[in-house]
Amino acid sequence: MTKPSIAFIGLGTMGAPMASNLLKKGFAVSVWNRTPSKSEELAAEGARATQSPADAVAEADVVITMLSNDDVVRELYRGEGGILASVRPGTALVDNSTISPALARELADAAVEAGCGFLDCPVTGSKPAAVSGTLVFMVGGEAELLERVRPVLEAMGQKIVHLGPSGSGSVAKLGHNAIVGINNLALSEGLSIAVSGGLDPAKFLDIVKAGAAGSKAAELKSPKLLERDYSVQFSLALMLKDLKLASALSDGLSVPTPMLEAAKSLFQAANAAGYGDEDLIAVSRVYEQWIGRGLDGGE
Amino acid sequence: MTKPSIAFIGLGTMGAPMASNLLKKGFAVSVWNRTPSKSEELAAEGARATQSPADAVAEADVVITMLSNDDVVRELYRGEGGILASVRPGTALVDNSTISPALARELADAAVEAGCGFLDCPVTGSKPAAVSGTLVFMVGGEAELLERVRPVLEAMGQKIVHLGPSGSGSVAKLGHNAIVGINNLALSEGLSIAVSGGLDPAKFLDIVKAGAAGSKAAELKSPKLLERDYSVQFSLALMLKDLKLASALSDGLSVPTPMLEAAKSLFQAANAAGYGDEDLIAVSRVYEQWIGRGLDGGE
Amino acid sequence: MTKPSIAFIGLGTMGAPMASNLLKKGFAVSVWNRTPSKSEELAAEGARATQSPADAVAEADVVITMLSNDDVVRELYRGEGGILASVRPGTALVDNSTISPALARELADAAVEAGCGFLDCPVTGSKPAAVSGTLVFMVGGEAELLERVRPVLEAMGQKIVHLGPSGSGSVAKLGHNAIVGINNLALSEGLSIAVSGGLDPAKFLDIVKAGAAGSKAAELKSPKLLERDYSVQFSLALMLKDLKLASALSDGLSVPTPMLEAAKSLFQAANAAGYGDEDLIAVSRVYEQWIGRGLDGGE
Amino acid sequence: MTKPSIAFIGLGTMGAPMASNLLKKGFAVSVWNRTPSKSEELAAEGARATQSPADAVAEADVVITMLSNDDVVRELYRGEGGILASVRPGTALVDNSTISPALARELADAAVEAGCGFLDCPVTGSKPAAVSGTLVFMVGGEAELLERVRPVLEAMGQKIVHLGPSGSGSVAKLGHNAIVGINNLALSEGLSIAVSGGLDPAKFLDIVKAGAAGSKAAELKSPKLLERDYSVQFSLALMLKDLKLASALSDGLSVPTPMLEAAKSLFQAANAAGYGDEDLIAVSRVYEQWIGRGLDGGE
Repeated sequence: MTKPSIAFIGLGTMGAPMASNLLKKGFAVSVWNRTPSKSEELAAEGARATQSPADAVAEADVVITMLSNDDVVRELYRGEGGILASVRPGTALVDNSTISPALARELADAAVEAGCGFLDCPVTGSKPAAVSGTLVFMVGGEAELLERVRPVLEAMGQKIVHLGPSGSGSVAKLGHNAIVGINNLALSEGLSIAVSGGLDPAKFLDIVKAGAAGSKAAELKSPKLLERDYSVQFSLALMLKDLKLASALSDGLSVPTPMLEAAKSLFQAANAAGYGDEDLIAVSRVYEQWIGRGLDGGE
Repeated sequence: MTKPSIAFIGLGTMGAPMASNLLKKGFAVSVWNRTPSKSEELAAEGARATQSPADAVAEADVVITMLSNDDVVRELYRGEGGILASVRPGTALVDNSTISPALARELADAAVEAGCGFLDCPVTGSKPAAVSGTLVFMVGGEAELLERVRPVLEAMGQKIVHLGPSGSGSVAKLGHNAIVGINNLALSEGLSIAVSGGLDPAKFLDIVKAGAAGSKAAELKSPKLLERDYSVQFSLALMLKDLKLASALSDGLSVPTPMLEAAKSLFQAANAAGYGDEDLIAVSRVYEQWIGRGLDGGE
Repeated sequence: MTKPSIAFIGLGTMGAPMASNLLKKGFAVSVWNRTPSKSEELAAEGARATQSPADAVAEADVVITMLSNDDVVRELYRGEGGILASVRPGTALVDNSTISPALARELADAAVEAGCGFLDCPVTGSKPAAVSGTLVFMVGGEAELLERVRPVLEAMGQKIVHLGPSGSGSVAKLGHNAIVGINNLALSEGLSIAVSGGLDPAKFLDIVKAGAAGSKAAELKSPKLLERDYSVQFSLALMLKDLKLASALSDGLSVPTPMLEAAKSLFQAANAAGYGDEDLIAVSRVYEQWIGRGLDGGE
Repeated sequence: MTKPSIAFIGLGTMGAPMASNLLKKGFAVSVWNRTPSKSEELAAEGARATQSPADAVAEADVVITMLSNDDVVRELYRGEGGILASVRPGTALVDNSTISPALARELADAAVEAGCGFLDCPVTGSKPAAVSGTLVFMVGGEAELLERVRPVLEAMGQKIVHLGPSGSGSVAKLGHNAIVGINNLALSEGLSIAVSGGLDPAKFLDIVKAGAAGSKAAELKSPKLLERDYSVQFSLALMLKDLKLASALSDGLSVPTPMLEAAKSLFQAANAAGYGDEDLIAVSRVYEQWIGRGLDGGE
C-alpha cells in the first residue's frame, strides 16, 4: 500500500521539524510557507517547494496546517485561492494549529461542503518534541478519518488521543494550556515570595521539584529562572493567545474560571511590558519588577 | 555516643507516624497529645506517655512539636506550663508545624531567653511520607543547632534543606504550599473546561499528565477527581490555613501575589461550602456546582 | 418640517417604553416584536403593529432596534427577510442594543453597502429612565447621521454623547458597564465583611453612602440588599453578557483588566447558581452562601 | 458644665486640622507629635505643646490619637512611657486611626485594666473634611463612653455612628475602604478600556458620572485622571495599608473577598512602582504602563 502524499503548510518553529520528520519517514511532501526561505530549507531535505497553497494541496491526499492563529487559519482555508477552493474531494484536512473550537467546527462544516473531512488536531510538546517526533496529538472529528491519517500523525508524534467530534481537540488543547499558564505563574509567584523572604532561589526550587508543588513547569523552567534565560521554548505571546482563546471558550461554556482570568491578565501585562517574543516564563519578569530584584537572587 | 532523648508533642495524622519512626530507630521518646488516646497508641510501640507538656519535655534533649496552627504552637511554647517554662537550658526545640515566619522568629528569640535553641522546620510530604520516613524538612535557624538534631530528622525524613536564619523554613513551606494550592486549582479549572466542553475527563487528565501541564497535583489527584474520592491526603482546611499564612507573608513582604489571592478566595469558598475536612482537591466541588455536573463526567 | 417615520423593533423592558415615548412625542411608529402581544400593546397607544421586520422597516425613515445580544442583532440585520434586505436606501439605522464594537463596525459596513447609515447607540439608564425619557445615548458613527436622528433620540433621552466612529458607542457602553458590575460587587463584598464582623447592615450602608465609598450602586441597591429584594432593575444575566463582551473587548485591545475578569467570574458563578433572571445585585447571594447568613443581617 | 480637657496625639495631615477645630470650639488641648514642629504650629493656635505623650495625657479627660498604623498605635498605648502607663483612671481614650479590629479589642481590654475606657473611632473623609469639621466617625465600644465624648467628636465631625462593641468601628472603616479601593480601580480600568478603544476620556468620564457607573470615586478622581494630577487627597500607601488590614480581617472572618484581594495586588504593584506617596488614584498609572499611553488621552 502506497503512502499518502502530503501537503504541509506552515513551516515555523513547530511546522518545519514536523514536515522534516514526514520526509524522513518516506512521505512525499509538498510544502508552502508565507516566507519562502523556509520552503527552500525543506526542499533541501526532499520536499517539493510550491508557490501557493493551491499548488501545494492540489494533488495531496492529506493536507496538514500548522499556523499561528484563528485569522490566519480561516483565511488559508476559506480565503480566495485557499485550501478549500483548491483541494480534490476526498482529501483529508488536518489542522495542527491551536484554534478556537468554534473555528474548528466551522472548518469541519466547510470541509464537508467541499467533499472533504477535517480534523482539529492541536499538539502538546514544544520544539524538542516536534524535532524528536514525540508530540501528543489531541484529535477532534470523525474516528474513521483519524484512522486514515493515523500513519501520518504517527510519523510526527508518540501519542494520539481521539477526544470526540470536531472542536474536541481544540477544547483539550485550550484546557491543557490554561493549566500550563497557571502552573508557570504559580512557580513565578512562589519563587517571588521565597526570594523576597530571603531564600536562595536554587534551594527553594529544589524543594518545589521534590515536593507536592512539583510540575513540568518547575522542571522545564527552574533552570531558566535561575539564569534569567528567556530564550523561547514556547513564546509568551502564544501563551497569551491561548489563554485568550481559553477564556473565550469558558465564557461560551459558562464556566467560571477565575484562575485562568487572573493568569490572562498577568500574561497580558507581561506582553505589554515587551516580553511577548520571549519564553513564556518571562512572565516572571513582571514579578521581578514588583519585588525590585531578580528571581535569580541577584539585586 | 548515646542517642538524644526526644519529647514529641502533637500526635496527629503526621505526628504519630513520625514519632513511630523515631521509636523504630531506637530513640527514647516521651509523647504528649491533647487527646490522650493517641499517646497510648504510641506507648504500645514503646514511647513514654505523659500527662502534660511539662512532664514530656522536662528531661528531653530534643523537643519536637507537630501542631495545627500559630495559636496552638504559641500557647504550647509560651503558655503557662508550656515548653519554654519547662525545658532545661540547652534543649534543642524543633517545630515541624507550618507556622508564620513571624512566630518562628518570636519563638527563636524566646528560646534564646530560655537558654535553648529553636528551629522552624516544617515538612513537605503527606501522611504516606510521614509513615515511610521520607519527609523533606525545610529548616530555618542556626546551622550548628541543625547539625545537632540532624540524626533525629534523618530518622523521619529523606531530605533536609537548611534555608537560612529563623523563619526561613516557614517562608519556604508557605511559598511551596502556595504553589500546591494554585496547581490544584489549575487542575480543577482545566478539567472543568474540558468536561463542560464535552470531553472524557480520564482522556483529558491523561493528556495533562503527559504534557507540559503535568504536575504532582495531576498525578496525585487525577484518580481522586475521576472517582470523586475526597478522602484526606492533606485537608482542604489546612491548605486554606497555609494560603492565609502565605497571603499574610506576601503582604508583609510587599509582594503582589494575585494568583495566590485568587486561590485563597476559592479555597475559602470551598471551606464555606463545608468541604474543609475533605481532601484539598475537594476545591473541585466548587467548580462542579458552577458547571452543574460532576468532574468525573457524570451528570 | 415633517417628523421622520420610525420603525421600532424589539419591545422588551426597555424598548416598549422607548417606543411609547416616540408615540407621545407625535412620531409615526411601526413596531415589530418576536412576541406579537407586545406589538399589540403599543398599537393601543397608536403604533402600527406589523407582522415582520421587513414590513416594519419598508417605509421607515429611521429604524431603531433594541435587542438582547449580538446573535439576535446580526440575524435581524443580516438574516433573510432582515432589515438590510428590506430598507430603502437612505434610511437611518440606529441600534440601541448593547453589542460588541466588532459587530457595530460590521453592521456599519453592511449598511453602507445597502445605501444606508448605521449608528451604534447603546443607552445607560434602566427601565425607569426609559419610561421617563431620560436615557443617556452613547453614539458611534457619522456625526451627520447623528444630527439627522437627533430629534428622535431626544424624544427618548436627556443626553446624547457622540463618541467617535462606528463602534465607539459600544466601547463606551462596555467600559461603563464594566464599572457598574465591579462597583456592585464592591458593595456586596464590603457588606459581607461588615455583616460577618457583626455590624448592622443598614448602619454600614449609610456610612458607605455618606463616605468616599459612595456610588450609584450603593444608592440604587442598598434598599434591595436590606430587603433581599431581587426584582429586576437590570438583570444579572444581561450584566454577565455585558461583562463577557467587555472582557472580549479588552482582550482584543490588549488591555489587562484583572478587576473586570474577577467580576465576570463572580457574575458567572451567580448565574450558574440560578440568579440570572434576578436583578444584578443578586450577585450578593453568592456572598450570602459563602458567609452562611443573609446580608440583611438575618441568619 | 466645663469642657473636658483634651490630649491630642498625632498631628499629621488629618490630626492637625482636627486638633485645630477643637481649639476653635474652645477646648483646652495638649498636643504631642513625633516631629515637634507640628506641635509648635498648633501651639500658635493656642494648644499646649508637650515633650512626651506622658506629659500630654497626664491631666487629660479625653485622649485622642490619630496615627498611621497598628505598630505605631500599639507602641504609643502600650509601650514604655506610653498612654496607658501615664493616664489617670477614668480617662476616655479615643483612637481615630485606622487599625485592625484585633488591636482595637486588645487596647480596649488594656484600657479596662488601666481603669479607663477605649473607643475605636476611625473616620471617613479626607483632609478637606478634617479641615471643615465634617468628618464621619465610626465608633466601636461602650455606648456610655461614646456619650461622654460625643461633644468632642461633634467639634470635629458631622456624623457619629455607633456600630457596636470594641472593634466595630474598625470593621466598618475597613469594609468602607475596601469599597473605596475597588471603586477607584473600576474607574481606572473602565477608563483604560475607553482610552484604548479610542474614546475621549473626558467624554467617557462624563458618561460614567451621569450613569449607573457613577461614584464618589468618579466625582473626586475624574479631574485628577484627566490632568494626571497625583497630589495627595488620600495616599496610595495608606490605601494599600487599609486593603491589607481588610484582607486580614476577611481571612479572620472566613469571608471570601476575591475583588478585595485583586485590588490589594494592584495597589501593591502600584506601590512597588513607586507611587505610594501619591494619591491613591495613581493606581491608574499601572494601567497607563500596560496600555502604553496616558489615561488623559495623551500618548
